[in-house]
Amino acid sequence: MNVAIIGATGYGGIQLVNILRKSKDHKITFLGGNKSSGSKWNDLFPFIKVDDDPLIEKISTKLIAERSDVAMLSLPSGLSSTITPELITNGIKVIDLSADYRYKSLDKWKEIYFKEAALFNREDYDLCSESVYGIPEIYQNEIKNSRLIACPGCYPTCSLIPLIPFLSQGIIENDGIIIDSKSGISGGGRTPKEHLLFSEASEGISAYGLLTHRHTSEIEQILSYASGLNTQLIFTPHLIPIVRGMFSTIYGRLKDPGLTADDCKILLDNFYRNSTNVKILPVGTYPSSKWAKNSNDIYLSVNVDNRSGKIILLSTIDNLLKGQAGQAVQNLNLISGLNSNEGLDLATFYP
Amino acid sequence: MNVAIIGATGYGGIQLVNILRKSKDHKITFLGGNKSSGSKWNDLFPFIKVDDDPLIEKISTKLIAERSDVAMLSLPSGLSSTITPELITNGIKVIDLSADYRYKSLDKWKEIYFKEAALFNREDYDLCSESVYGIPEIYQNEIKNSRLIACPGCYPTCSLIPLIPFLSQGIIENDGIIIDSKSGISGGGRTPKEHLLFSEASEGISAYGLLTHRHTSEIEQILSYASGLNTQLIFTPHLIPIVRGMFSTIYGRLKDPGLTADDCKILLDNFYRNSTNVKILPVGTYPSSKWAKNSNDIYLSVNVDNRSGKIILLSTIDNLLKGQAGQAVQNLNLISGLNSNEGLDLATFYP
Amino acid sequence: MNVAIIGATGYGGIQLVNILRKSKDHKITFLGGNKSSGSKWNDLFPFIKVDDDPLIEKISTKLIAERSDVAMLSLPSGLSSTITPELITNGIKVIDLSADYRYKSLDKWKEIYFKEAALFNREDYDLCSESVYGIPEIYQNEIKNSRLIACPGCYPTCSLIPLIPFLSQGIIENDGIIIDSKSGISGGGRTPKEHLLFSEASEGISAYGLLTHRHTSEIEQILSYASGLNTQLIFTPHLIPIVRGMFSTIYGRLKDPGLTADDCKILLDNFYRNSTNVKILPVGTYPSSKWAKNSNDIYLSVNVDNRSGKIILLSTIDNLLKGQAGQAVQNLNLISGLNSNEGLDLATFYP
Amino acid sequence: MNVAIIGATGYGGIQLVNILRKSKDHKITFLGGNKSSGSKWNDLFPFIKVDDDPLIEKISTKLIAERSDVAMLSLPSGLSSTITPELITNGIKVIDLSADYRYKSLDKWKEIYFKEAALFNREDYDLCSESVYGIPEIYQNEIKNSRLIACPGCYPTCSLIPLIPFLSQGIIENDGIIIDSKSGISGGGRTPKEHLLFSEASEGISAYGLLTHRHTSEIEQILSYASGLNTQLIFTPHLIPIVRGMFSTIYGRLKDPGLTADDCKILLDNFYRNSTNVKILPVGTYPSSKWAKNSNDIYLSVNVDNRSGKIILLSTIDNLLKGQAGQAVQNLNLISGLNSNEGLDLATFYP
Repeated sequence: MNVAIIGATGYGGIQLVNILRKSKDHKITFLGGNKSSGSKWNDLFPFIKVDDDPLIEKISTKLIAERSDVAMLSLPSGLSSTITPELITNGIKVIDLSADYRYKSLDKWKEIYFKEAALFNREDYDLCSESVYGIPEIYQNEIKNSRLIACPGCYPTCSLIPLIPFLSQGIIENDGIIIDSKSGISGGGRTPKEHLLFSEASEGISAYGLLTHRHTSEIEQILSYASGLNTQLIFTPHLIPIVRGMFSTIYGRLKDPGLTADDCKILLDNFYRNSTNVKILPVGTYPSSKWAKNSNDIYLSVNVDNRSGKIILLSTIDNLLKGQAGQAVQNLNLISGLNSNEGLDLATFYP
Repeated sequence: MNVAIIGATGYGGIQLVNILRKSKDHKITFLGGNKSSGSKWNDLFPFIKVDDDPLIEKISTKLIAERSDVAMLSLPSGLSSTITPELITNGIKVIDLSADYRYKSLDKWKEIYFKEAALFNREDYDLCSESVYGIPEIYQNEIKNSRLIACPGCYPTCSLIPLIPFLSQGIIENDGIIIDSKSGISGGGRTPKEHLLFSEASEGISAYGLLTHRHTSEIEQILSYASGLNTQLIFTPHLIPIVRGMFSTIYGRLKDPGLTADDCKILLDNFYRNSTNVKILPVGTYPSSKWAKNSNDIYLSVNVDNRSGKIILLSTIDNLLKGQAGQAVQNLNLISGLNSNEGLDLATFYP
Repeated sequence: MNVAIIGATGYGGIQLVNILRKSKDHKITFLGGNKSSGSKWNDLFPFIKVDDDPLIEKISTKLIAERSDVAMLSLPSGLSSTITPELITNGIKVIDLSADYRYKSLDKWKEIYFKEAALFNREDYDLCSESVYGIPEIYQNEIKNSRLIACPGCYPTCSLIPLIPFLSQGIIENDGIIIDSKSGISGGGRTPKEHLLFSEASEGISAYGLLTHRHTSEIEQILSYASGLNTQLIFTPHLIPIVRGMFSTIYGRLKDPGLTADDCKILLDNFYRNSTNVKILPVGTYPSSKWAKNSNDIYLSVNVDNRSGKIILLSTIDNLLKGQAGQAVQNLNLISGLNSNEGLDLATFYP
Repeated sequence: MNVAIIGATGYGGIQLVNILRKSKDHKITFLGGNKSSGSKWNDLFPFIKVDDDPLIEKISTKLIAERSDVAMLSLPSGLSSTITPELITNGIKVIDLSADYRYKSLDKWKEIYFKEAALFNREDYDLCSESVYGIPEIYQNEIKNSRLIACPGCYPTCSLIPLIPFLSQGIIENDGIIIDSKSGISGGGRTPKEHLLFSEASEGISAYGLLTHRHTSEIEQILSYASGLNTQLIFTPHLIPIVRGMFSTIYGRLKDPGLTADDCKILLDNFYRNSTNVKILPVGTYPSSKWAKNSNDIYLSVNVDNRSGKIILLSTIDNLLKGQAGQAVQNLNLISGLNSNEGLDLATFYP
């Protein structure tokens, strides 16, 4: 596939370039950026060299369409919707890393992303309902044949992969779910902001967006869809001083309190038996986000509190890979007819 | 007061020395240690100089009794119980920072600390039932007249101060409470262990002790006592790469789902109106553990999820001060007839 | 003294407020800021509360003059020169934390700070030659009687205090000095910039400003003055991932290669015998920047390479206190007729 | 090649396993450890899985000899010398990551490593003089035909690669060299020690081993050999709070002060024109250790101070890869008849 990467010098874009620059299956044919346009890639990133040292160019749907089969968009909320319709019309497939096409209903998007909705006058209802939510482990069949894939947010990825097996099979109650998530600072992006400064973020942990974080509704939408029942939950994100990594501690109520941790582990094993990048740990083994760093894997561990009949799920990913660019490349592989993990067998170095 | 500090070169001991070395009310008269005995304090800690440069001595109940009115014990689990009875018999008051006297029932301690129970042949049932649980904001009256104070663990401190106002007044249900806590690495102590190494702990977050962490039963005991009802909860501790700091995100079910976040804030304001080191934040203001670092303050924030009738409490402290040594000095102040916060108005530097 | 703090919400300003808010000798009477003006201090910094919760106001020389005896200016390069002349004219003493008055010669400033010189049309030659360079351990007498004090940069402070005793007494050659410095990230300030982001700065070390860093000429000016001989040196700054702290490793050639490390330590002891915040370590004891963190102390250690006749000086400070705001308060104390260390006996917590 | 890895669960060993576990050229046939023997690899490292899940076994020269062609020894100082002679006698090639065979003269080793010399009664003079010092970029020809390769220490690697081109060609004076190095904490190994704890090492920088660090003599030996002239230098190591990475700032005196930075860059370009993993940066571009992290590359930058005729060399590596295990695999490749960088084109993820 000839691939355009838009938003190439943000953290998502850098990962995409890094993964794809030596791919035997895909070829980077366009690098688009805003502030960085006009620069040569290797001048900005001498430590992630790309052969032929491509120029970063102003975003141009015309040029993208001329050179590429697929466009991977790593742009701030709302911006993707300004170029996706034209790209699709020109026959270019779009893998969007933003939230613009994650809701089946554009009205829902306008409600949740109301600030962006005020800036961008969107009417692409059809594309919203057409788009496929890109969790490759769950929706591989829909993804394969799609021309517009909305990649999940990092928090939803880290929450949905552990939860969907239990919700879709009716093991966990649809209400009472609590997702307590902890994210590395790179999740806040590369645009300088005060709270992302080293001096502010290090040696501290804080919660933010209680009850109102926009990923709440994204997670609820997919869980409702997967379970066939309306799902409401509490999602509490925290920022912790690591660069890369995300860790979710998830609490739910078992419908059958007699289920054991081993039962639940077996259920996960079965559900993900074909997904080699989903690592189900033995009961009693708890992962560190460090295990997942620099890889496209997700580690899951499950336990059950017999006293209260509650299930606890631990889930950890690299927020920039499985939580963002790695997952996008899985989707790229699927629409290319490849195995989703092709080129993503990334070695994590330890420590 | 003439004060003996035992376990002086561990992290708890270092804080005690640092707080007390310039006190106008208390005087350090004995420094006890094991591996460090025979060294002069100022040689080990040239950056925390103590006047007269005291010698660190082998632990001797005889010497402690000769020189001190109070002994502050910062020792590994079980060890305190080997010297506390003799100290008490000799008229020395004891402020114990370990778990040895936190349970009213020694049998409960033997059940929870079964490894230590196998090493130390304890029969001090009376002292266990006599001891006072040292949260100065809650039990100041009992503490003032006590000769044996069991200081709470860091996790219980950070959990109980936000929860007790609601449990003791019957606002939150006694079941269904979830405490998701995040601790800095110094909570693991100063004895070298692999998982506490910089290379292992940095750039990662992990959960540990799911369902079985010993602080679970400590928190349950006090909440049951404060509410008059048996309380069972889920407590999930995590290690995050900060040196100092602890942050707890606590979820509970309101008995009256019509209560608002403002109602709950007012309740906290009233409950802690005399505790200047308990900082109740405006609704919607969420603290960072960095705010509490190097201080003896605890920051609380409360919110309510109208959809589910759940309350969310955020709580953050410096695990080595309010979570350990600072709280112990509050107790020392109380048994000395002083205001509990005397000498503890510590300035946090930022960032 | 009634004190105005200008640039109150930058890192320098925050330290000044934190130190002075509980002073028994000084009173904060004006807080000036730009972006933060209009906010109440305690809303921005609920964890560093100031009594009476002052408003942060737009910078106004009129208001400063009405309310204050001294103005402490913590502003970006060049800005101080736009208000200092008027303040001085109105009888307000100025303690400037920027580089604007560090050079006796305004022309030299215009050469080194050429970018700022192009923006600000300075003609205050007299004030430049009048101003006193504010290292309290060296120039206390000049400072006491000055109405304009230029506080040294963090790198110069950390370099000059170890070097001046040897240069002023002709122990070290004036050429061949190498200063290899390492600074924490807070030295880059609080204004968001990409290279100061947590994700960029953590897990890395880099050098910058080789041969051209502006502090080179500042250090050379003072060493030339102190020794009476023209001094040229190499200064290499590095950024390391700590919030607070600066560490300099300094190499020089001894004129008399027979001098021992002990000789050099005694020389330092004598030179700084009246400066209690200068901590001379025993030969063979090497400090960590962590020792100086949150304190106004500077730790020095000296060694001598017999093989080459070279001296090695280690020097470490908290860049925001002894390297910035703490030193400014020393100067404030001196012009107030107080001991320079008054109110600066700050306890560092460890670890 | 069939490869035995001894000391498999230390940081060096983990990297070796990680690099070689998917090699198409080499096969891991023995994993040796002490404390970890008896464990299955994948149980200890579920995040670095090795096919067939090998057992970690007690170190046995007999088993190593039966199964392997080459033994890679990542052991504490002195221990390698207890098994290397027997391995060599049995026809097994040895790539030693320790200092045991880095000195041509065993007497020199006994002088520098006097503590280990007291514990291990070494008489293997012949092996010391036979062994080849394993910098693949410099000594590839000797390495190819050797049966015993002593891999350089991390500090020597990071110092010698920038210096050898200038010393071997007589560009820099042999005296007056200063190497100011900064190392990540993983350089201290995985065995728990107090100063390596997160709580001790983070938020601090310190120097250690001034004038006496054992790598001083190792660097001097090779520079003397490369230049044909006796070389004495000052080497000052520092510990900084990063996990992986090393950065050296090197100062030397140019014989011809008329040389420019561009001249020196061209000299480096020419010297390393065949070494693709040596990255020579444009004059004025300064690397971060973060660029080299998780890669086997070394980044070099050179500048010249016209005023003093001094050269400044910046050099940065991943201390566990190019500074340890990656370089060892380069040597393994060379004795296997492969290109030294085979399998080492490791992608660094950023940030």
